[in-house]
Amino acid sequence: MADQTAKLTACSGRIDFERSPETYRHWKLAFHGESAELIMDVDETATLFEGYQLKLNSYDLGVDIELADALQRLRFEHPEVKVVVLRSGKERVFSAGANIRMLAGSSHGHKVNFCKFTNETRNGMEDSSEHSGQKFLCAVKGTAAGGGYELALSCDRILLADDGNATVSLPELPLLAVLPGTGGLTRVTDKRKVRRDHADAFCTTEEGVKGKRAVSWRLVDRTVPSSRFDEAVAEMVQELAAQSDRPSDVTGIKLTPLMRAIDNDRIVYSTVRVDIDRNGKRATITLQGPTDQPPGSPAEMHAQGADFHPLRQSRELDDAILHLRLNETAIGTLVFKSDGDPDLVLAYDALLAAHQSHWLVREILNNWKRVLKRIDVTSRSLVALIEPGSCFAGTLAEIVFACDRAYMLDGRLEGDNRPEARLALSSLNFGRYPMPNGITRLETRFLGEPESVEAAKARVGQALDATDAATLGLVTESLDEVDWEDEVRIFLEERASFSADALTGLEANLRFAGPETMETKIFGRLTAWQNWIFQRPNAVGPSGALKRYGSGVKGDFDPDRV
Amino acid sequence: MADQTAKLTACSGRIDFERSPETYRHWKLAFHGESAELIMDVDETATLFEGYQLKLNSYDLGVDIELADALQRLRFEHPEVKVVVLRSGKERVFSAGANIRMLAGSSHGHKVNFCKFTNETRNGMEDSSEHSGQKFLCAVKGTAAGGGYELALSCDRILLADDGNATVSLPELPLLAVLPGTGGLTRVTDKRKVRRDHADAFCTTEEGVKGKRAVSWRLVDRTVPSSRFDEAVAEMVQELAAQSDRPSDVTGIKLTPLMRAIDNDRIVYSTVRVDIDRNGKRATITLQGPTDQPPGSPAEMHAQGADFHPLRQSRELDDAILHLRLNETAIGTLVFKSDGDPDLVLAYDALLAAHQSHWLVREILNNWKRVLKRIDVTSRSLVALIEPGSCFAGTLAEIVFACDRAYMLDGRLEGDNRPEARLALSSLNFGRYPMPNGITRLETRFLGEPESVEAAKARVGQALDATDAATLGLVTESLDEVDWEDEVRIFLEERASFSADALTGLEANLRFAGPETMETKIFGRLTAWQNWIFQRPNAVGPSGALKRYGSGVKGDFDPDRV
Repeated sequence: MADQTAKLTACSGRIDFERSPETYRHWKLAFHGESAELIMDVDETATLFEGYQLKLNSYDLGVDIELADALQRLRFEHPEVKVVVLRSGKERVFSAGANIRMLAGSSHGHKVNFCKFTNETRNGMEDSSEHSGQKFLCAVKGTAAGGGYELALSCDRILLADDGNATVSLPELPLLAVLPGTGGLTRVTDKRKVRRDHADAFCTTEEGVKGKRAVSWRLVDRTVPSSRFDEAVAEMVQELAAQSDRPSDVTGIKLTPLMRAIDNDRIVYSTVRVDIDRNGKRATITLQGPTDQPPGSPAEMHAQGADFHPLRQSRELDDAILHLRLNETAIGTLVFKSDGDPDLVLAYDALLAAHQSHWLVREILNNWKRVLKRIDVTSRSLVALIEPGSCFAGTLAEIVFACDRAYMLDGRLEGDNRPEARLALSSLNFGRYPMPNGITRLETRFLGEPESVEAAKARVGQALDATDAATLGLVTESLDEVDWEDEVRIFLEERASFSADALTGLEANLRFAGPETMETKIFGRLTAWQNWIFQRPNAVGPSGALKRYGSGVKGDFDPDRV
Repeated sequence: MADQTAKLTACSGRIDFERSPETYRHWKLAFHGESAELIMDVDETATLFEGYQLKLNSYDLGVDIELADALQRLRFEHPEVKVVVLRSGKERVFSAGANIRMLAGSSHGHKVNFCKFTNETRNGMEDSSEHSGQKFLCAVKGTAAGGGYELALSCDRILLADDGNATVSLPELPLLAVLPGTGGLTRVTDKRKVRRDHADAFCTTEEGVKGKRAVSWRLVDRTVPSSRFDEAVAEMVQELAAQSDRPSDVTGIKLTPLMRAIDNDRIVYSTVRVDIDRNGKRATITLQGPTDQPPGSPAEMHAQGADFHPLRQSRELDDAILHLRLNETAIGTLVFKSDGDPDLVLAYDALLAAHQSHWLVREILNNWKRVLKRIDVTSRSLVALIEPGSCFAGTLAEIVFACDRAYMLDGRLEGDNRPEARLALSSLNFGRYPMPNGITRLETRFLGEPESVEAAKARVGQALDATDAATLGLVTESLDEVDWEDEVRIFLEERASFSADALTGLEANLRFAGPETMETKIFGRLTAWQNWIFQRPNAVGPSGALKRYGSGVKGDFDPDRV
């Protein structure tokens, strides 16, 4: 199968995840006190790649990057917004979903990463609703097809105009021989709890479902004639606002542009550095701990705004991970290091832990939670190297627990005068950062020995040396200075010698022991099947449905079932 | 990618799932009162396909079909066996796992179906342990590699010789660039609850783990020197026997050969008939209800043995499903019909429900449960047609609930004098037949409206006409005689026009709403990722590791991550 890659429209030759509202091409925000409108109005010429147009509010990754940015600003810049009304800026269409020509022209890897990012953005909407008190109403006039309806599914409520035109549909299977892979199938069964034969009928019917049937099949919450549409929106906004615990009397903080310098093999942020070793097929991500004491109060923290170290670092780390995922696909291993004073990291954690009910603290913690989840589902091998001078404490230690392996140096390397490596835990490691499976990384790690979670908890705040950390099971191995370099080198070289695909599958399975949630179902079952289908000739072969889309000729299928 | 298919060694040109101990080539059974030995001693020449030898106790589907048969006989023919000791008949090897040359030479579809069947067999061992009181001890001397260790993982306990030679390993990733896909990864994380970094190290280490480390990593339960091996086996057998509730004073029943006539487009069993429509790409499976009243007591039922209608039918249906899966891959839709008296089906259900603690009743119900689960995970579209003269009642109604769609005829077609269609429920529909997700098909169906389960339960034993069944939500649609033929024909034609792969992915997602279990993880996440990898050039391309295995040249990998 040809794995052609479309040409990026950006002169930089890379996909950039930084956006700001002044330069949005596809979304508009309008604020009305405790509610806001998030209006999808895609500029069909402003594509990420060459070779297609974003007609009918269809989207590519560029559209979704703006959406993710808008959601982030709604959380941080607009604490007063309790309800977000998602609607279309086009007349007769809500959204046609992911752009099909874009998909047909994308490499397999881009398809997969596009789906992953869009899934994370939609999971983020549900996270906002559940944990930030920001509720979503999707007000659908016109057609919401495929990814358009999947976007609606991510909202708390769906209102559908009953005008003989507005429909919801998931036409991926009949039209393109692929799945509604942006959470569609999972949300239909597990969030909307649509009866399986209705779901089957819905997902195999190109033209979709409208009006009362859409309500009775649980596909939408309510349908009203156009004349009563705005009134129904107002009612539903009120209902959702009543469920929100967002404050009414505070001001947001401005998410200022990231400080970032990108060159070929290095990205330098203010608190994160990425060093790429192309021969070794790995990138080292070094996290710089805070250098000052934390502010003394939430008010002072608020005054620091986006410069507040934990917030700044979570945003920079997020950008770095996304950059590596999309722009550096041959970099198979991410090596995490840190540099700083673990006590200062713990001091910041203490501030955050003490003020968890403060809206901004909540947002900062929620952002770390989402960034850590993004690391969990990143299909790269993850390893933490805990060395002298490092500061893997509390929130930063959580990165160690997100890794497939963690090695800790017991002692010092010759000529290195930095303090010996210490690992430290804070209360935030014990509940505030659940994985996609709904339990903490330590609970997942110690599924077979829950007493080890308790043993670790008893050591909160202590500086744990390599022996302690290994005894507590918090790191894979403690290595002395004689073994360190060889062992680490052998591990990294061996990792780089394995099949990238097999590692992706292995890691996706080993990282998520224990309970399952809608999120793990989306990244496990749904995504894995979609990736499989994205390789099958019936979809992407020369006579596959995705390749032939728009040619007027239907897909020509091999009927064999597997 | 070339999807070459190896040539079957059987003259029949098809894979047959019927076996009996007298003709076993690969397994031996030895009985010692309340324990039995199940000895793997693979005949390397007795392969299912041409082109490879089953060296070192490696296996192909043929070996596993015998294993499944042996397990079935242990359940039914040997009620006195409380503990099964699984061991090798070879000197220095337990099992080398799935045969790699067989895998490398198989079509994608055969690989997938091979994994599915072997997974079902191993899930069946856990089902025996949990629900039939038959416990498994795996006594490992020598190497248990890949599928060999996965077989051990399916047992309740693993004993490993501590002799410097015996090891357990999952070398699939480093050796073949594929996953331990027969439940391996899932059982390592969720059954053995191995810490994720240990699991990562274990699954990337070709040579595996032995002795005390295997115990401390939770990979095996116990390790003892060879001199104490037999003594340890005896101790562990005793410990497991104490957990068993199997009876000691009863005699088993003989699983007689199936009555079966296979020709090109038809298979006729005594209570099941399969009619294949190759143009329509579908098979109609007609279940014949019992024609006589059930026996009056468990003793009379025991006297009927394998002829007892529910047991006979479950075995025939199982064989039919397996035949269609492996030998009729282009048949994409299974149409279920039934023929008989619903009251008689309910009478058999009543007998089974009344004597659930009887060992044979328990086995028969467990067998139905497993056969129904096999239908759930069959990657074919499933539709039930409920017509005049049908007998979808109780246990047989469960097949309706396993289907993606169910259509019920309201009235009669011209010239048909059979009684109008009736659907009926029995108590067995409300707990005795959980799906792989651990809840019933009706609970899964009505996840969004649990009150509908109660409403259905209130109608147990009643003959429900099409209107009732549709109102209760038990069927997709009730159709009158005017619409019936057209609607059904259109549905079947449309289904046959869709991509087989997209349907496989859709159905695998829509069928399993709600909770997740180790079984759903195996068939969802693990299998889906493995299927994806089975399509990737890094495994199956000309320079992929699976293709190059045995050539002395390592796989040459595309390093790109997706």
